[in-house]
Amino acid sequence: MTTLDDTIGVLRRTVCALHADLTRYNLVTWTSGNVSGRVPGADLFVIKPSGVSYDDLTPESIVVCDFDGKLVDGELSPSSDTDAHAYVYRHRPDVGGVVHTHSTYATAWAARDEAIPCVLTAMADEFGGEIPVGPFALIGDDSIGRGIVDTLAGHRSPAVLMKNHGVFSIGEDATAAVKAAVMCEDVARTVHIARQLGEPKPIPQDDIDRLYDRYQNVYGQ
Amino acid sequence: MTTLDDTIGVLRRTVCALHADLTRYNLVTWTSGNVSGRVPGADLFVIKPSGVSYDDLTPESIVVCDFDGKLVDGELSPSSDTDAHAYVYRHRPDVGGVVHTHSTYATAWAARDEAIPCVLTAMADEFGGEIPVGPFALIGDDSIGRGIVDTLAGHRSPAVLMKNHGVFSIGEDATAAVKAAVMCEDVARTVHIARQLGEPKPIPQDDIDRLYDRYQNVYGQ
Amino acid sequence: MTTLDDTIGVLRRTVCALHADLTRYNLVTWTSGNVSGRVPGADLFVIKPSGVSYDDLTPESIVVCDFDGKLVDGELSPSSDTDAHAYVYRHRPDVGGVVHTHSTYATAWAARDEAIPCVLTAMADEFGGEIPVGPFALIGDDSIGRGIVDTLAGHRSPAVLMKNHGVFSIGEDATAAVKAAVMCEDVARTVHIARQLGEPKPIPQDDIDRLYDRYQNVYGQ
Amino acid sequence: MTTLDDTIGVLRRTVCALHADLTRYNLVTWTSGNVSGRVPGADLFVIKPSGVSYDDLTPESIVVCDFDGKLVDGELSPSSDTDAHAYVYRHRPDVGGVVHTHSTYATAWAARDEAIPCVLTAMADEFGGEIPVGPFALIGDDSIGRGIVDTLAGHRSPAVLMKNHGVFSIGEDATAAVKAAVMCEDVARTVHIARQLGEPKPIPQDDIDRLYDRYQNVYGQ
Repeated sequence: MTTLDDTIGVLRRTVCALHADLTRYNLVTWTSGNVSGRVPGADLFVIKPSGVSYDDLTPESIVVCDFDGKLVDGELSPSSDTDAHAYVYRHRPDVGGVVHTHSTYATAWAARDEAIPCVLTAMADEFGGEIPVGPFALIGDDSIGRGIVDTLAGHRSPAVLMKNHGVFSIGEDATAAVKAAVMCEDVARTVHIARQLGEPKPIPQDDIDRLYDRYQNVYGQ
Repeated sequence: MTTLDDTIGVLRRTVCALHADLTRYNLVTWTSGNVSGRVPGADLFVIKPSGVSYDDLTPESIVVCDFDGKLVDGELSPSSDTDAHAYVYRHRPDVGGVVHTHSTYATAWAARDEAIPCVLTAMADEFGGEIPVGPFALIGDDSIGRGIVDTLAGHRSPAVLMKNHGVFSIGEDATAAVKAAVMCEDVARTVHIARQLGEPKPIPQDDIDRLYDRYQNVYGQ
Repeated sequence: MTTLDDTIGVLRRTVCALHADLTRYNLVTWTSGNVSGRVPGADLFVIKPSGVSYDDLTPESIVVCDFDGKLVDGELSPSSDTDAHAYVYRHRPDVGGVVHTHSTYATAWAARDEAIPCVLTAMADEFGGEIPVGPFALIGDDSIGRGIVDTLAGHRSPAVLMKNHGVFSIGEDATAAVKAAVMCEDVARTVHIARQLGEPKPIPQDDIDRLYDRYQNVYGQ
Repeated sequence: MTTLDDTIGVLRRTVCALHADLTRYNLVTWTSGNVSGRVPGADLFVIKPSGVSYDDLTPESIVVCDFDGKLVDGELSPSSDTDAHAYVYRHRPDVGGVVHTHSTYATAWAARDEAIPCVLTAMADEFGGEIPVGPFALIGDDSIGRGIVDTLAGHRSPAVLMKNHGVFSIGEDATAAVKAAVMCEDVARTVHIARQLGEPKPIPQDDIDRLYDRYQNVYGQ
């Protein structure tokens, strides 16, 4: 029988390994991003410790927190973004993973308080419309978490640009949230570059709807 | 005597390995691009399976399809772009390889529905003129394949930008199609950057013709 | 008992290894940047030798200089920026590390003589406000060192853009100075890209103050 | 006693290895750039073979040509840019190495027929002023070589942007020519990015002169 400890052990290894995708896709600098994953069957999640280099991350260094963001297991202090992750898990039972980065192009849109318009078929596939901007929110209370949940409530997008700050993405598990963070930066960059020399052509809403529906239901294995 | 199975085995290894060039040259993100290759002497081609990470690709995972895009051999579902590849093989017997990517700069031109003008000697060499834009087309029927074939029919270019979507490139074999995808992104980026600070100088058509002719006939070993 | 030689030996290894972060984060080209570290308990610092490739750096090749920039120990000539580093150590007893680079985006702001405005929460965290520009100064006397110290005196920022030249950053030790150089390029790039398509939204000064205070006192382990 | 064969063997290894710097600094795509080096004491130089992948280059594959660009030793056809290299060696006895690339930012300036202004101290150090643009020239006769030599005659710069084409750089040996190619792209990128958001500040000519003089005479070991 699988114990909660076994489940947490597997999740720590998965979440530790997923941080390598943040560096591989150049979404993070120094220690600036983090991945978390919900522990199935418990009001707990695992998350990166604060200020630890990606090179030094080990499964054992990944910490376990409850849905108030309090440390439950681990030697190190949890990420300073833990409260925002906790808020998302508390209010979105469908979410199994959360990722936060300051990836360059997405953060540039966030700095201008500007949503990324859906002008690419790949963006219709993954985001089903624009990637919205959430409010400016200070760290230290529920503001960031609430901003994420409230903004995503009105959109299909699994990613939100937090004004002047960076990106939060969600998914059914931590891998899906990492994929959303990776694709968010990819489309943020491509649409930015398209707009440097003119206006990208819009995609009609019903075509966006068709693309999103197909991708969510047919793509992959 | 070489059997069809042997031929397909070799082609699976080649096409599997060529996907590494897509990641090496940063043409793809997550699982967003694919390479296919025609099986010599048969109405078949091999192609990447859908939604599989480039790290996990093996020669065995590469699938075999017929020219209607139906799976003929392999464990996994073929790429969701298989119908477009199949259409190209069906209508262009001279084509031995097809590549699809959402590479950043090329896709930015595609998002604006704008052809890349031929303002570099390397572009005259490889593309013999502009890189054209094909129509906006939804996945799910022949629209994308037809858009590729019809647009390329009027151009020397082995690459076409599909509006709001990305790039398709062709070649006499899969390696040549990958080279065309790599060079397409390279010139898309250089011409974009040139245009950020002014207008690139045009190259006279007869000089483009001379460059193209020499490169196609003299370059290489 | 730890001797001065032991201390210098450890510092040489640390400073040698930190140059790998300059290449990893693409802050340097060929031999264009350098890291130094103060020797605790002595009026000495260690620094990169002049014109040596990062691949060829060894702890033994790192040289020891006094606070006039004169070579005290080592086989090679010290970095041509040694006088600037020496000036900083002489006038800022709180500084334990200095880094110099020509990193692309930061140097682009420096070429326009333009400070980087604080429009990102990560920038408020690390820099506590704008990253200022120091004067144009020729190499060969105290001008660069004096420009660094005088400009930083009026700012929380541990990094200064020297006009038409590049970046100098400081820290309590060499690692902190490298982190400041890395984050300086990161925010220089993000704010640049944000400004390409409009004006980033300002962050109110009291929010910058709160972010800076929290980050300096709470972040990390 | 060192024979000519020994000298050529050493040079083949050096020139082969230097191509790795072209890929490392992202100056080349597919097979688009080449390095050559003069054989001391003979009217010969070694150069990359045409159309060979950088991964497949070996010292043995590097070919030897005379100053008319004719193959003297080697199994493969020489680079299609061989005539341009030969012209430079024939007319510039002080030149021991030549490099050609289509590096992105430098080629973007070349596409606009625009010289790179000297607005960075690192550019004053290495180039002593602007990096000039040479004429549009077709491959196939002396036009490119003559354009390089004639344009560089009026400048301190060891690099020239050939209109609509790319960069040629020279040096006292092949390593110095590679360094010039690397630094040319570096300053082409930084000045481009600086100009995206305004005008870089000029550096007074006498300061450029002082920086150039010091760097050429004092820098390094």
